[in-house]
Amino acid sequence: MAKKLEGITSRDVDFAQWYTDVVKRADLVDYSSVKGSMIIRPYGYAIWEKMVSVLDKMFKETGHVNVQMPMFIPESLLNVEKEHVEGFAPEVAWVTYGGKEKLDERMCVRPTSEVLFCEHYKKIIKSYRDLPILYNQWCTIVRWEKTTRPFLRSREILWQEGHTMHATSEEAREETLRMLKVYEIFQKNYLAIPVLVGRKSEKEKFAGALETYSVEAMMYDGVALQNATSHYFGQGFAKAFGIEFVNKDNKLETPYQTSWGCTTRMIGGLIMTHSDDNGLVLPPNIAPYQVVIIPIGEDEELKKAVDEIRKGLDNEGITYTIDNSDKTPGFRFAEAEVKGYPVRIELGKRDLDNGVVTLVRRDTLEKVTVPIDLAVTKVKEILPVMQEAMYEKARIRRDGMIYEAKTYDEFKELSKKPGFIKINWCGAKDCENKVKEETGLKSRCTAQEDHSGKCVICGADATCKMYFGRQY
Amino acid sequence: MAKKLEGITSRDVDFAQWYTDVVKRADLVDYSSVKGSMIIRPYGYAIWEKMVSVLDKMFKETGHVNVQMPMFIPESLLNVEKEHVEGFAPEVAWVTYGGKEKLDERMCVRPTSEVLFCEHYKKIIKSYRDLPILYNQWCTIVRWEKTTRPFLRSREILWQEGHTMHATSEEAREETLRMLKVYEIFQKNYLAIPVLVGRKSEKEKFAGALETYSVEAMMYDGVALQNATSHYFGQGFAKAFGIEFVNKDNKLETPYQTSWGCTTRMIGGLIMTHSDDNGLVLPPNIAPYQVVIIPIGEDEELKKAVDEIRKGLDNEGITYTIDNSDKTPGFRFAEAEVKGYPVRIELGKRDLDNGVVTLVRRDTLEKVTVPIDLAVTKVKEILPVMQEAMYEKARIRRDGMIYEAKTYDEFKELSKKPGFIKINWCGAKDCENKVKEETGLKSRCTAQEDHSGKCVICGADATCKMYFGRQY
Repeated sequence: MAKKLEGITSRDVDFAQWYTDVVKRADLVDYSSVKGSMIIRPYGYAIWEKMVSVLDKMFKETGHVNVQMPMFIPESLLNVEKEHVEGFAPEVAWVTYGGKEKLDERMCVRPTSEVLFCEHYKKIIKSYRDLPILYNQWCTIVRWEKTTRPFLRSREILWQEGHTMHATSEEAREETLRMLKVYEIFQKNYLAIPVLVGRKSEKEKFAGALETYSVEAMMYDGVALQNATSHYFGQGFAKAFGIEFVNKDNKLETPYQTSWGCTTRMIGGLIMTHSDDNGLVLPPNIAPYQVVIIPIGEDEELKKAVDEIRKGLDNEGITYTIDNSDKTPGFRFAEAEVKGYPVRIELGKRDLDNGVVTLVRRDTLEKVTVPIDLAVTKVKEILPVMQEAMYEKARIRRDGMIYEAKTYDEFKELSKKPGFIKINWCGAKDCENKVKEETGLKSRCTAQEDHSGKCVICGADATCKMYFGRQY
Repeated sequence: MAKKLEGITSRDVDFAQWYTDVVKRADLVDYSSVKGSMIIRPYGYAIWEKMVSVLDKMFKETGHVNVQMPMFIPESLLNVEKEHVEGFAPEVAWVTYGGKEKLDERMCVRPTSEVLFCEHYKKIIKSYRDLPILYNQWCTIVRWEKTTRPFLRSREILWQEGHTMHATSEEAREETLRMLKVYEIFQKNYLAIPVLVGRKSEKEKFAGALETYSVEAMMYDGVALQNATSHYFGQGFAKAFGIEFVNKDNKLETPYQTSWGCTTRMIGGLIMTHSDDNGLVLPPNIAPYQVVIIPIGEDEELKKAVDEIRKGLDNEGITYTIDNSDKTPGFRFAEAEVKGYPVRIELGKRDLDNGVVTLVRRDTLEKVTVPIDLAVTKVKEILPVMQEAMYEKARIRRDGMIYEAKTYDEFKELSKKPGFIKINWCGAKDCENKVKEETGLKSRCTAQEDHSGKCVICGADATCKMYFGRQY
């Protein structure tokens, strides 16, 4: 049996403390003297590497290429688009000195790179032949947050930002939704996170966007995590930057733009969706190691058996790690649970004599004993089943915490419970401010574009069905 | 025939201008309003991605794992190791404001991350069981350079930095040389760049290192490019940071440290080693696309033939791109030469009628006509031959520009020629300063650790054979 490890608070007792404990105990991050930033340790970074490799492939398959823009933005460049600068200037880090010299113009560390891409696009877009431009960038951005939490809110964020330019508005809108779909599929198929996707409210959209779409996940505690966004910019930035192209009829036109991004915050989402009081639980399709092998004892026969299993896993392309440290089996089992390896293979001398091994599935902690020569076959069988089961479990829990309110009184009553509330809504900022003030909830994303019915908050004509909820 | 493109100066007329022209014409980089930084465009970034994927695999195969440290370093943390801060403080970018608030303590953007790793190691290293620690980081660093050139010297640099900790000095020294070897093999097998590897002089070693080893390439113009470095730190940083571990005998010891790194500068080295007056020449093993297919004309039969070739290349794992733009064939051939695709397949209606295609090898511009069903086989044959030939060509040129001097007069005479000069040397800083002042040359790396003979500069006992040369 796995020894109970100290140091993880129960998630039903104190969810915030549980999260911090899991992140720390699973060796995902550490702190340093750099306030508000985190060190992503090897195991945490391996999860990010896996996310990057899958997403990068999906981006390339949809025609995108990677580039690298400068990390700094001169103040005058940040100022070109008015709404954008108002949204970001209050939370940027300013570089004012290079070595001993004061800079003529201060520069911020990019909080996002729209203006850098636009300046470049102004130079490289001349003709309709140059469009579409489908660029993506993997990099680090900085936003000077006051309160930070590992993965969820940090001064430095590892992310990707797609920036595309199109000849027509239709094409740009299609791109916005295409990338939203890529995020949705990724989160479902790899992270096993059920998500809601829809349009953000006027109040919650990105500074400078005409429309923002988001991927909204609900954590174990009923609180929302915005896990990715995709923006349709229309011609706003393009006009501010004077970007024009000659169309097929030899006339000048302004192109249409999108941007879309996701961050290391998804690691936080992964934890708060699936993990438990024993530590991390990682879906097989995103786990850095899908299997941990724990040999109990030391002898030649055991070593040979482990080698056989390794060979079998290699052949099947199943990733694994081996813990043959000199710690007690109970300690190593517990450690394997903290780390969230999807399947644990326990293999002792007595098992070997009986020709069997024990497999433990991390999500259910279910144990099965199987003949040793069937171990790999059984692991291969478990992994997709577990992936699917984790998704379903999270989906059922999430669905059970989505309510619909027909009146504002009902809304206020439901708002005391964890979860989301769906209502007919007019979309007005005043309405949203009132809800925030009286219940603490914010709009998440549209459940449906819907023009019938009346707004549950103010009684005006509804323009959509909207989810509301608390957020990280 | 390839149309002669405008815009590339001959490399024998003006090497510096030629370099700038190639970098720009091949769409590798662009400039922005961020002085001293570059935009790495898709084709340039694709070369870097290829480098990263190969090196990352080599690092992992030698037991290393990736992590991510903060991007900022508080001033007090940078100040912990004295030699280190003296080496770097004059060239860092300082962040002094977060949003509207002045920071209590200013922070620099990392110029390198030794101090961040050491602060972390102090926390995670307790026992000999925690060693060795074999970490690597892929990130961007900033050094406030006055004069910059794309890839060669830039305020922002994309790089990797390995930082390792070991229980014994022997093990750390082995690691230093192991990673030096990894760089050497990578540069030979992938970049087709012949390199010299050896120890740096006292004057030229890294700020804070006991020993620095480097990988020195010689460019077409005889000037050196330091393409990677590997440092043995001994216990210097570890003592400054108070890092200690309990050894097997239960006694406290200080561990031994290394670091090693390489940067986007290698792209500059790739260009200045192989490229010519027609543009880039990329070795097949690092080219983002190993083949470009150029169909001439438009018809169903041609399209089918192109599809056949694509299928064949896919089957062989050979990467390719297709240029079927409406530009003239001559223009497209020239464009393919600028981009440096290793093999160009030209395929026209008349060729098709004769059942043949034309293959053009980029390094020699040699043309062969082959039966269409042998096209892929022939490409497969050419690629490794071309890789080897590019290396050999560069090696022979380089070897022809390495001289040996027996007297200082001979040294001064030879220093007027492009290339390196090998001498017996005492290793003294005074000696190196004198050479720099009188000839403009700096020490590159040791050719041999050699205690016999006398220093060619000052006549004292020699401690090594050293290469001298001009540098980028």
